Amino acid sequence: MCMVESVDRIKTRTRSPLSEAESKSLLAGYGVPMVREAVAMHEDEAVALSESIGFPVVLKGVGKNIAHKTERGLVKVNLKSSGEVLNSFRTLKEAGGDDWEECLVQPFIQGRREFVAGLARDPQFGPVVMFGLGGIFTEAIGDVVFRIAPLNESDARDMIGELASCTLLGAFRGEAAADTGRLVRVLTGLSRLGLERPDIEEVDINPMIVGPDGGVTAVDALVVLGSGEGKTATPDEKNVSETTEEINAAIEIMTHPKSVAVMGVTRTPGDGFPGMYACIRNFGYPGRLYPVNPKADEIDGVKAYPDLVSLPEQVDLVVISVPAPLVPDALRDCIASGNKNIHIFTSGFKETGEEAGLKLHAEIEKIAREGGLRVVGPNCMGFYVPASRMLTWTEASTESGPVSFISQSGGNAQDFTSYASSRLGIHFSKVISYGNALTLDSTDFLEYLARDDETRIIAMYLEGVKDGRKLFDLISGINLKKPVIVMKGGLSESGARAVASHTGSMAGAEKIWRAFFRQTGAVRVDSLEEMAEVAKAFIHFRKCGGRRAVILGTGGGVGVAAADSCAKAGLELPVLPPDLLEQLREFIPPAGNMITNPIDAHLVLLDHKVFAHTLDILSGTPYLDMFIISLHLDWLRSREQGTLIEKIGRFIVDEARRHTNGKPLVVVVRQYQPNPQTKECRSGLEEILLKGGVPAYESLQKAVFALSKLAAYHAFIAAR
Amino acid sequence: MCMVESVDRIKTRTRSPLSEAESKSLLAGYGVPMVREAVAMHEDEAVALSESIGFPVVLKGVGKNIAHKTERGLVKVNLKSSGEVLNSFRTLKEAGGDDWEECLVQPFIQGRREFVAGLARDPQFGPVVMFGLGGIFTEAIGDVVFRIAPLNESDARDMIGELASCTLLGAFRGEAAADTGRLVRVLTGLSRLGLERPDIEEVDINPMIVGPDGGVTAVDALVVLGSGEGKTATPDEKNVSETTEEINAAIEIMTHPKSVAVMGVTRTPGDGFPGMYACIRNFGYPGRLYPVNPKADEIDGVKAYPDLVSLPEQVDLVVISVPAPLVPDALRDCIASGNKNIHIFTSGFKETGEEAGLKLHAEIEKIAREGGLRVVGPNCMGFYVPASRMLTWTEASTESGPVSFISQSGGNAQDFTSYASSRLGIHFSKVISYGNALTLDSTDFLEYLARDDETRIIAMYLEGVKDGRKLFDLISGINLKKPVIVMKGGLSESGARAVASHTGSMAGAEKIWRAFFRQTGAVRVDSLEEMAEVAKAFIHFRKCGGRRAVILGTGGGVGVAAADSCAKAGLELPVLPPDLLEQLREFIPPAGNMITNPIDAHLVLLDHKVFAHTLDILSGTPYLDMFIISLHLDWLRSREQGTLIEKIGRFIVDEARRHTNGKPLVVVVRQYQPNPQTKECRSGLEEILLKGGVPAYESLQKAVFALSKLAAYHAFIAAR
Repeated sequence: MCMVESVDRIKTRTRSPLSEAESKSLLAGYGVPMVREAVAMHEDEAVALSESIGFPVVLKGVGKNIAHKTERGLVKVNLKSSGEVLNSFRTLKEAGGDDWEECLVQPFIQGRREFVAGLARDPQFGPVVMFGLGGIFTEAIGDVVFRIAPLNESDARDMIGELASCTLLGAFRGEAAADTGRLVRVLTGLSRLGLERPDIEEVDINPMIVGPDGGVTAVDALVVLGSGEGKTATPDEKNVSETTEEINAAIEIMTHPKSVAVMGVTRTPGDGFPGMYACIRNFGYPGRLYPVNPKADEIDGVKAYPDLVSLPEQVDLVVISVPAPLVPDALRDCIASGNKNIHIFTSGFKETGEEAGLKLHAEIEKIAREGGLRVVGPNCMGFYVPASRMLTWTEASTESGPVSFISQSGGNAQDFTSYASSRLGIHFSKVISYGNALTLDSTDFLEYLARDDETRIIAMYLEGVKDGRKLFDLISGINLKKPVIVMKGGLSESGARAVASHTGSMAGAEKIWRAFFRQTGAVRVDSLEEMAEVAKAFIHFRKCGGRRAVILGTGGGVGVAAADSCAKAGLELPVLPPDLLEQLREFIPPAGNMITNPIDAHLVLLDHKVFAHTLDILSGTPYLDMFIISLHLDWLRSREQGTLIEKIGRFIVDEARRHTNGKPLVVVVRQYQPNPQTKECRSGLEEILLKGGVPAYESLQKAVFALSKLAAYHAFIAAR
Repeated sequence: MCMVESVDRIKTRTRSPLSEAESKSLLAGYGVPMVREAVAMHEDEAVALSESIGFPVVLKGVGKNIAHKTERGLVKVNLKSSGEVLNSFRTLKEAGGDDWEECLVQPFIQGRREFVAGLARDPQFGPVVMFGLGGIFTEAIGDVVFRIAPLNESDARDMIGELASCTLLGAFRGEAAADTGRLVRVLTGLSRLGLERPDIEEVDINPMIVGPDGGVTAVDALVVLGSGEGKTATPDEKNVSETTEEINAAIEIMTHPKSVAVMGVTRTPGDGFPGMYACIRNFGYPGRLYPVNPKADEIDGVKAYPDLVSLPEQVDLVVISVPAPLVPDALRDCIASGNKNIHIFTSGFKETGEEAGLKLHAEIEKIAREGGLRVVGPNCMGFYVPASRMLTWTEASTESGPVSFISQSGGNAQDFTSYASSRLGIHFSKVISYGNALTLDSTDFLEYLARDDETRIIAMYLEGVKDGRKLFDLISGINLKKPVIVMKGGLSESGARAVASHTGSMAGAEKIWRAFFRQTGAVRVDSLEEMAEVAKAFIHFRKCGGRRAVILGTGGGVGVAAADSCAKAGLELPVLPPDLLEQLREFIPPAGNMITNPIDAHLVLLDHKVFAHTLDILSGTPYLDMFIISLHLDWLRSREQGTLIEKIGRFIVDEARRHTNGKPLVVVVRQYQPNPQTKECRSGLEEILLKGGVPAYESLQKAVFALSKLAAYHAFIAAR
């Protein structure tokens, strides 16, 4: 019987397992090494088949109404003789009763190493391939990894290597290494199957046994058909019926508008949030700004318009901040007046999870789609673009920088940019808060930023995504040219619940997102603070050759903690080799100067010739990839009336980097005592470093974390 | 043959395995359910034994020169008939050749669930019991846990529950739950064995099979004898030949000295570290302070003495800061003058890892022990006791508090106390930096602080310990009365290396230290920053009933991150039950006020009656254990010209706590914008909270981490 026919025949049912034989035949066609088997209807047939297969064999009683063979006693393994086969056949037939239809005869595959492989459909990313430790341990240990399809060979190899128990696949206790090539074919085959057959909901191959000779055999498998609808993660609807180029052009206009109309403007209140109109005006927006309010002739001394139709021109951007029930009419006004670029600030839609909000959401979605509107929001803070003096929240730096930030959360958009620019000197090119993503989604903004010359680094705060596959494809490509730093909120169970009530987006399972990061190479951070620290490293360093760091500075206990931090973050803090130590000892005397790594040497900080020479020697070797200078300000302040601190800062900015051979160098500024003189020295130092383009961190942990992400990113790029 | 005799006979060898039979017989005596077995010298004997045991059986060829039976093909399993036994016997005898002595006949134990148990000797803690997933997965998965002996039943149960794969021990895939009582007896038996038999170096029981009926059978086991010397973690030497009471009294005098002599005083330098003498004087030490310097008549205008013998009195504390080679003579001077309480600041001893330092270390150790000196150091910063105005470093707060801190690292002692007191308002009773621990060790200071009424919380920074078992016993007891917060440095490989070069102490393996924390209940932190955050929570809250938190505040994206943080730290952020939501909705309208958890409700912060009522309702339920108030200062500052912030602070301090039913309440102060007015409001708020005794944290992550440690501590105490 042709497998495909059989599948097509069953396809009308909603969710139904294929038979064991059908499952195996289908999978064999996709490279899965299924165990040989034959069907026996009669006991003499079973004996004859067993003899031709060779003992020991396995006998299974099967039938379309039999689901759990093992539990029903319908599997007999390790049958070593015709007699045993005969007895077992009778037993199985009796145990199966009316459900019994036939027996399967298979060789008894022996192997202590059992794995499991499979295919599932993720609601956000579509087909995902699974591989893990099998046998009875699958659930108990939970050592399984995922990949988002499609997988190429190198993805499959990386996937296998990620398994905690992958040592079992090497030569192991007298058994040969597993046939990895075969495993790779299984995983890439499952990926192909997932893409070619949207009607297949799930595949479960368990166990897949690795024999003593390393051979791989799938002994049991189940294929489940689904409806084949909506689970393939093909985009449910095109966001707006425009080309990518058209959307890009529109976003360029929205982020650099020559004219803006704000609907729902009231007189600026003395207290609390001043409203969208005042935010834009206060930030110094130089374009034409129109307040719209049907109940007022003027707002804050400026002529107000009753509606968009009455405006003297079509505007580049309409900002809607009327109450939620009035938003549908506002959108109709947009359509009537030919205004297509909209930011809806108003909340009260699907994020409420309540019926009224959901209904209103559906209504505005329909209006927007039918009217071909390009909508940012609703339930979002909108835009911050320093170069065009565009800001739809209260306060931000007017300085531009190389980072752009896309944030589902408006609060995070404001808080992150405020924190990053005021505390860490990180400046932005475009910041877009897009909330419920009515028509324009993160992927639209990503495509725009990918082509935006002013954006060198993209940071994203994501809760859920509408089209996970598109996000995956986009980031996979963009990240190779511009680092994409992603914080994914809602990966824990309670976090996912909070996401649901926050933006109504679907938060994905942690293991799938782990695959997302592993495959795209996007830089994963788990907090906005981490995002800022990592962005700082990417701003300053465009390359990084490895993960071996050297720390120069002072203080014993801190060295221990630094070493522990490096180990945790995956940086190496290698012991310096004897030839290097010898070279250093030529000009650094032992007293008070430890030259292990960390290098805890007073002389290095006190004598800048020694400092430069040390850097020359260290950077000239192939042993080290990056430098961390740790400055203990409380100690340094006691030297040369505090002027030493400034001197060191200037030395690092003006000289040190010339001695690092292009390798990243960061400074850790440690201050514990509240001494005001130290604080003053610190401000001076931080200003020197910031102006000089040397990233400073306030703890070794933070520096180590940021550098580890930098190293991992460049290792990923180098491997492509 | 009597097992004990056989062991005694072999004891003279350094490290030798017992035979399989001897091993099993010994272990059976300690409650290990060894598989039945019998010895067969002849083939007919093997057949007869098999028939009496019942098929299937296992045959093993053994002999004292046979180590790896399986690899040599000397194990035959699942023999189902006399014929198979006969054939196997002949095969084994031939395969064993001259090494073959006899065959063991055992029933073939079938079970898919394999575990391992064992005993090892940790260089710091002595006998440790191991339990883990067995079979071929032991090494590949590494799911093993340790406990420091002795183990009682409840320790053993906790140990079993800690295993990641412990679900395998429940009813599992049609097989019965494992006989946990038997497993507990195995683990407690191994603990007893470890304590009673110091000559036994190692026990390895692998596999221990859990059968389908839940029965536990150890199938193979190996016992290795060691020298029996120095590995039992009995203290190598008593630190000083005094009673605990005498040492306590001495430490009390050293921390509250009426007179101090400083050896190696030079004129206070204008630059850099001012020296011990100036440190003590500058801190306002009110007692009699004598500079000792054979080359000067006066120091900074004060009469100097050539040596201790010339002093007008014996002093309560001698501080030695002469160069390392002069320390032996300085100690001799101490002995000659009858001064016994010494702090050696000088470094250059075993921490250098170099020959000269090690030699000097041995010399001063000999002098100190023979002279009965009580030595803090060398290579350490010594004392900080605000109440007695004693400080041997440059700068510290003069305010006393309930926390005492013992630190192996001098740098950490200074940095942590400076940071904690100046930034977080945490104040100290006694801080002791003890470096290389020549005679007085962490355990001596612990015993002192345990009895010190002014110390309510003990914080420790440890690198290595001389007497791990004593530390374990002490902290086990003290922690039940005073929380002991421990940061253990050097748990990573590179960290351990840094420890070695830092204090020459031995850093223990991570898994053993994990057992240490689990068994003692000591609060584990991994950085000084974490230590400070946790100490703050312990200062303010003396009880905590559980781990279910509610967050009140504003800002959507932050709610998602908060939920993720709680999940990571092991706090729960429960969904509020319908009856609670209903009660809240009676006075909190839906618009702008989400009342899921986190509760993102403007009204709660704006109307303090609503705030108090909300707290009353939440704290009155059994669903919640703690409150986190999250204040977004940038937003709050825009309300009521910033006065709202101060009002909320006063409300929390004066009112809110009366409405929390004694449950912990902390405040998170979030500020992202650099606005100076916000900064000012923030200082005011933090002062109000600090004075009012409400701990404030600068991020939700930090608050959640500290509260999770508080909850875990009290859960541990409650379980005892």
